[in-house]
Amino acid sequence: MEERKKSLIQLDYTGMMRSEKNPKAISEKDLCSFQPQMHIARVALLQKRAQGELDFSALLLEMKGQAQQIQEYADYLSEHYENFVLLGIGGSALGPQAVHQALRPYYYNELSSEKRNHRPRFYVVDNIDPTRFKDLLESLNLEKTMFNVISKSGNTSETMAQFLIVRQMLKEVCKDQFNEHIVVTTDQEKGNLVTLSENEGYRRFVIPSGIGGRFSELTPVGLLPAAVCGINIFELLDGAIAMDKKIREQKDLFENPAQLRAALGCFSLKRGKAISVFMPYADGLKTMADWYAQLWAESLGKRYDRQEQEIWTGQTPIKALGVTDQHSQVQLYTEGPNDKIFTFVTVRIFDEEILIPKDDDLEQNIQFLGGHQLGDLLRAEHKATEYALSLAGRLHQNIILPELNAYTVGQLLLLLEWETAYMGELLNINAFDQPGVEEGKIGTYALMGRPGYEQRRSEIEESICKKYII
Amino acid sequence: MEERKKSLIQLDYTGMMRSEKNPKAISEKDLCSFQPQMHIARVALLQKRAQGELDFSALLLEMKGQAQQIQEYADYLSEHYENFVLLGIGGSALGPQAVHQALRPYYYNELSSEKRNHRPRFYVVDNIDPTRFKDLLESLNLEKTMFNVISKSGNTSETMAQFLIVRQMLKEVCKDQFNEHIVVTTDQEKGNLVTLSENEGYRRFVIPSGIGGRFSELTPVGLLPAAVCGINIFELLDGAIAMDKKIREQKDLFENPAQLRAALGCFSLKRGKAISVFMPYADGLKTMADWYAQLWAESLGKRYDRQEQEIWTGQTPIKALGVTDQHSQVQLYTEGPNDKIFTFVTVRIFDEEILIPKDDDLEQNIQFLGGHQLGDLLRAEHKATEYALSLAGRLHQNIILPELNAYTVGQLLLLLEWETAYMGELLNINAFDQPGVEEGKIGTYALMGRPGYEQRRSEIEESICKKYII
Repeated sequence: MEERKKSLIQLDYTGMMRSEKNPKAISEKDLCSFQPQMHIARVALLQKRAQGELDFSALLLEMKGQAQQIQEYADYLSEHYENFVLLGIGGSALGPQAVHQALRPYYYNELSSEKRNHRPRFYVVDNIDPTRFKDLLESLNLEKTMFNVISKSGNTSETMAQFLIVRQMLKEVCKDQFNEHIVVTTDQEKGNLVTLSENEGYRRFVIPSGIGGRFSELTPVGLLPAAVCGINIFELLDGAIAMDKKIREQKDLFENPAQLRAALGCFSLKRGKAISVFMPYADGLKTMADWYAQLWAESLGKRYDRQEQEIWTGQTPIKALGVTDQHSQVQLYTEGPNDKIFTFVTVRIFDEEILIPKDDDLEQNIQFLGGHQLGDLLRAEHKATEYALSLAGRLHQNIILPELNAYTVGQLLLLLEWETAYMGELLNINAFDQPGVEEGKIGTYALMGRPGYEQRRSEIEESICKKYII
Repeated sequence: MEERKKSLIQLDYTGMMRSEKNPKAISEKDLCSFQPQMHIARVALLQKRAQGELDFSALLLEMKGQAQQIQEYADYLSEHYENFVLLGIGGSALGPQAVHQALRPYYYNELSSEKRNHRPRFYVVDNIDPTRFKDLLESLNLEKTMFNVISKSGNTSETMAQFLIVRQMLKEVCKDQFNEHIVVTTDQEKGNLVTLSENEGYRRFVIPSGIGGRFSELTPVGLLPAAVCGINIFELLDGAIAMDKKIREQKDLFENPAQLRAALGCFSLKRGKAISVFMPYADGLKTMADWYAQLWAESLGKRYDRQEQEIWTGQTPIKALGVTDQHSQVQLYTEGPNDKIFTFVTVRIFDEEILIPKDDDLEQNIQFLGGHQLGDLLRAEHKATEYALSLAGRLHQNIILPELNAYTVGQLLLLLEWETAYMGELLNINAFDQPGVEEGKIGTYALMGRPGYEQRRSEIEESICKKYII
């Protein structure tokens, strides 16, 4: 328990706040003015939670209850398979990848089986590029490969196309045992993957009906792949549960990190900060920026508010990586339009360190690096970037992870999910739907010749008149 | 030659242009109004080129002349080393990664040596995360590893810190032969890597002095890693040379893809499209979006114009990936603020295809997928996304690669570089410097104790008063 207390993540929002050097930034009074709105938002969200509309939070304990069963199945898989391939897209792929990258070695798949603790290699095929998919399928020993097909609806075109291809190949290679190479994660009751798993005998895990794709990491969507790769899913859930509790119980905006981040986000958005940059300073959190970008974009990018008024709102997320993108994006961040806010995610203590060796024979302009740890350089660069942004009047904050472990990653996921839910309330939108994705889906059905979509097909084909092409 | 003609990349900008459905988009007249400005820009750029200020273009033939020597050294490396590790950051890392991912199999490092044509595995360490770096160094057989240290100035802190660590480890493992495991790519005359290569006997390649990091892919920075991995650098350069010639010679805006893209970009930026989304529909081009994001952000994100007037300009690049990000970002792209333009990069014919099997027993809502190629689904999704964006009045264009090969990738690089140069002219800024990166560098020196930076260190430390932290 003592260990865990030390592992609480912190929010440092000093760089968002007014100071002598940045008199135009947000004041305490500005934040205070959010208190009444935030109180209403809190009541609304807790009520939704009680009504089963906020299951990413409400079902955490139930998920903890399922963790043992998931763990046992994952251990069984580890004993019998060398490769675990996730077929999924969007929320079915981003969370599993983000958590894997955060908590497993960067070059995991290239490690020997022993260094992977005899856990399977892990592949996420989150696209339908035929070259990549064919290359992968041809390189794997299918008899030693488990495919995890993830789609809540069971009719995601990309995932189902992958599934049909894999199923056919497995039938050819593994004959009657082909079904022992497919595990599906889908709805409880309905959809193709339910029927197919019953008819063809696939092991099945359930995505609770009240949890949408981008909020589903801490359901079997993310827990099974994590457990298969040896991530401690109990710790992951414990971290999430701790943060969930804190956010639900803490009424004071100034003590509630989700409320604070939502207030800072909303205030800045309304004052023209159309862009939110999420920039971890750790390679392990690179994909977490992708996960967050989906959460933020899909939840908040909305045409209508809850009174059906057109508002075309949203704050565009940008994923970046420290220190790498200092040499790519920071020029724009400091000298370009002041239309962004920045969230850095930092790790206080890395799992490993390396000393930069001293060499007195070197020129002074590199000699000074010697004797420091490599992590010291990374931390110095983060501080220097914060300072440079401050000088340019750019608003920034830090989410500080004492270390990168399952307990802190669990906390981070819930913090960002709750922050998004709060932001939805402040913007008066439904943060849990994605109506704008429908048009593209329907268009795809139409162009692929799905019966019933003939009219749309003609509409699209008529509209395609490539007048300007060189 | 016939083969190459078919391989010319195209620009389809229909989705940017005014139509019945999108009366607010750009008209031909709008574009025509750019003609005089574009003429001036062209003259200015060609003059700069003649004066040695546009060497990314001017030195292409010289680079072609060096290609044979680079190829021979790369072949030698392939025979003697199993791993090729690039140490570099920013422009020294993004181009090599982008080209590698475009032209080598997605899971290249996991392939057997035979399937890699006995070429070395390829790693790019473009960050200083100590955990990742230590994991990598410990997993490699250093006696079979070549490190390519890339820094034009020879004092990039991140790269030099990596270099110092690697050099020490190599000395321990390879003793007197440690220098046979380091090849440097740096300036012709000055900097630590010049001195060190002379004193310690490293093979050295030269980055021409007139080519900055983000424009350096087609110098030894990118050519050596590409050749080592078996990419045809002659074809890559031929593609670049062909596009370079076309752009230099074509005076008519409507026939010049770089001028067209710059005019469309500039026009839209000035009408509030603060964001430019670059979204390839091919896994192989994912990192190309990162490369382009640096090019666009660092070149155009500028506080001052050329008359030293404060303008805080720039268009924020966003990297996305089709179809994957349809399930992550397209909700925002269609329903969020109309503050973006979109560039899709499509590949007409993929190297491989996979048939989605037919199964008449399936439900209609997935049965329709059967009988199509997987690439057909990807193309349908791209079309459907274009259609959805059009309905929402969002401006978009396509760069069309007939196929993904060295010749088309070479063209793509030059198109985007020239487009950026033209955009710099239209915005009246210097697209080739990056003054905003200096502040962060100086801050890092100060915090790491480099002599001469004591005052800045106190300034930063005084400014760090973490008042708001929970």
